[in-house]
Amino acid sequence: MSDRIPADSVGVITPHQQIFETPVKLLCGRTLPRIELMYETYGELNAARSNAVLVCHALSGHHHAAGLHAVDDDRPGWWDSAIGPGKPIDTNLFYVVSLNNIGGCHGSTGPRSINPETGRAFGPDFPMVTVRDWVATQAMLADALDVRRWAAVIGGSLGGMQAMQWAIDHPDRVAHAVLIAAASRLSAQNIAFNEIARQAIVSDPDFDGGRYLDAAHNPARGLMVARMIGHVTYLSDDGLRDKFGREIKSGDLATASDVQFQVESYLHHQGRSFSQYFDANTYLLMTRALDQFDPARDFGDDLVAALRTARSDFLVIAFTSDWRFSPARSKEIVDALIAARRNVVSAVVDTPHGHDAFLLPVPRYFKILRAYMVHVAARMAVQG
Amino acid sequence: MSDRIPADSVGVITPHQQIFETPVKLLCGRTLPRIELMYETYGELNAARSNAVLVCHALSGHHHAAGLHAVDDDRPGWWDSAIGPGKPIDTNLFYVVSLNNIGGCHGSTGPRSINPETGRAFGPDFPMVTVRDWVATQAMLADALDVRRWAAVIGGSLGGMQAMQWAIDHPDRVAHAVLIAAASRLSAQNIAFNEIARQAIVSDPDFDGGRYLDAAHNPARGLMVARMIGHVTYLSDDGLRDKFGREIKSGDLATASDVQFQVESYLHHQGRSFSQYFDANTYLLMTRALDQFDPARDFGDDLVAALRTARSDFLVIAFTSDWRFSPARSKEIVDALIAARRNVVSAVVDTPHGHDAFLLPVPRYFKILRAYMVHVAARMAVQG
Repeated sequence: MSDRIPADSVGVITPHQQIFETPVKLLCGRTLPRIELMYETYGELNAARSNAVLVCHALSGHHHAAGLHAVDDDRPGWWDSAIGPGKPIDTNLFYVVSLNNIGGCHGSTGPRSINPETGRAFGPDFPMVTVRDWVATQAMLADALDVRRWAAVIGGSLGGMQAMQWAIDHPDRVAHAVLIAAASRLSAQNIAFNEIARQAIVSDPDFDGGRYLDAAHNPARGLMVARMIGHVTYLSDDGLRDKFGREIKSGDLATASDVQFQVESYLHHQGRSFSQYFDANTYLLMTRALDQFDPARDFGDDLVAALRTARSDFLVIAFTSDWRFSPARSKEIVDALIAARRNVVSAVVDTPHGHDAFLLPVPRYFKILRAYMVHVAARMAVQG
Repeated sequence: MSDRIPADSVGVITPHQQIFETPVKLLCGRTLPRIELMYETYGELNAARSNAVLVCHALSGHHHAAGLHAVDDDRPGWWDSAIGPGKPIDTNLFYVVSLNNIGGCHGSTGPRSINPETGRAFGPDFPMVTVRDWVATQAMLADALDVRRWAAVIGGSLGGMQAMQWAIDHPDRVAHAVLIAAASRLSAQNIAFNEIARQAIVSDPDFDGGRYLDAAHNPARGLMVARMIGHVTYLSDDGLRDKFGREIKSGDLATASDVQFQVESYLHHQGRSFSQYFDANTYLLMTRALDQFDPARDFGDDLVAALRTARSDFLVIAFTSDWRFSPARSKEIVDALIAARRNVVSAVVDTPHGHDAFLLPVPRYFKILRAYMVHVAARMAVQG
């Protein structure tokens, strides 16, 4: 390993591709004739095959959760702070699997894939996918990797929803579910923000009804506005104040001429960079899956009944300044888990970083996650 | 008066136009060669000319605050619930003046007005206006109406900022300032939401660098997204839940197909209707004025020093669920007023209606406003 790579990094990682040449029927009734899943693994699967951990990604995530893709890669995976030797999700203990979900735009079958029926990209014709479909296809990957039971399924935000759905849909295949900054379903405000982001995308003329790939253009302006909305709502008022206050980037406040605040410049940069690599149809589809997630619905709108099917233990973490998936939403989950007589450890972590905190190495958060994963490893050793 | 018109309405109102054929120099250094102000009045100015009340509008408001424009008009003014005979701002007691600010799009000189220098609409060339410019031009209107001193200057949100600026810039011309759901300056989060709305507008190809009037089109998609952002952030999470929950408008959640939630349909309607009547350049300009409002800046960033110049009494009202101009922001104003030794009455009203509550007849809010205005009238009678 190069001395440029820190000792607690999983190092240079090569993504894998798993191809399933079998039709996959989705909840919406449509069928994908075949699927490809991009994934990465970190650490070694033990002989008992009992130390596998699944990491589920959120809205804009992908399979590259930890390590580097080349020695001189200057952008590690999106959760590199949490996954690695000696890190909270310790690759000395666990075999960590991270994949790009179907519908994504990072190599797994999604809107940019070729539709075998037409010979051109699916684009807007890609079927609607749900959290349940993601869990079902993740289970196919688990089978392919010969992982019968996950020591833990872990995710933040939309990833936490997948962890919850795993515990409900496959009670015998999940020992521990870790739900970070999640909710059992979206509020009207959550849906509203998602819809505004979608509206920004579909009203961009370059969106072209979702057929932008055919014309080799990109609804970059719409994606930029969508990302800016996400960004502001994933941060807190206090967090933005600490970071930017009313600092001026350019212009003169005394005469109010051409003033640009630092926070505006930052958002432009974030939005522009996102619009260059993310697929608009994927963004629409992921936010729709978020809106429609509601595991209680299949149990007469009773979340307790839904969670009563689970057999796993749970860790539920929320962040004080997260106003999109607030501690109150985590408390709903915790209360339902208690009523469903599940073992649950929960914590609310004080931080100004808003919803985005789930991606950051907030000390108390990582301490809790680390301690819980040590417990998971201990349980795994006992149960073999 | 027709029996269709309620007894507590100010009735059918004819807007007035006041033309000033004198150049108006703005804070930005540019000069408008002449200005026109649209305004309405409700109630009668008393002989002592002491009962005049100025109502200042917020982001998307205008001069038509109360009453109807025709007997069969089904949309009364934007603050009809508060202004009228027997209402909190009682037109049996007060002579109420409401105007459309310069830069607006409801008849006062603004981006849609003809620039005498070019013979075509100002459009994006309309100069940057500030809250101080609005107060200065409102003072011109006061002079024209021969109102030397306002019994009260009243406003919610951006209107409250104008009331605060009046008290600072014209201490001898304001007896009472009523600041509802206001802040002494915007936070980074406030600015960020405004910038996203602006970005939605300017990135609409129909915006055409602000020259859309020349080409007879309208950046309706951008305005729609901008309004949707405003709307969601002016409401609270709880308010949206009470109003919409996760109610479905169409589609099937079980199969996740073509689902549209009620909240989405509502936002589409609001956004679309706004985009048909509001001017995009005005929206940009009003949000810029909001971002740049900061009366403390002229006093070494010391809000207490700024308010020490005021001679009026103050009423400051905030709403518990307002997260864009939260009670904490009103508290900053109240604390500064106390430190500046001004008389201040303040209240935080419990309501789920978010920032929008300032426009709604929330019972406790109206009770407080009514009681305060009775006090204003009593003081007016004493002071003549």
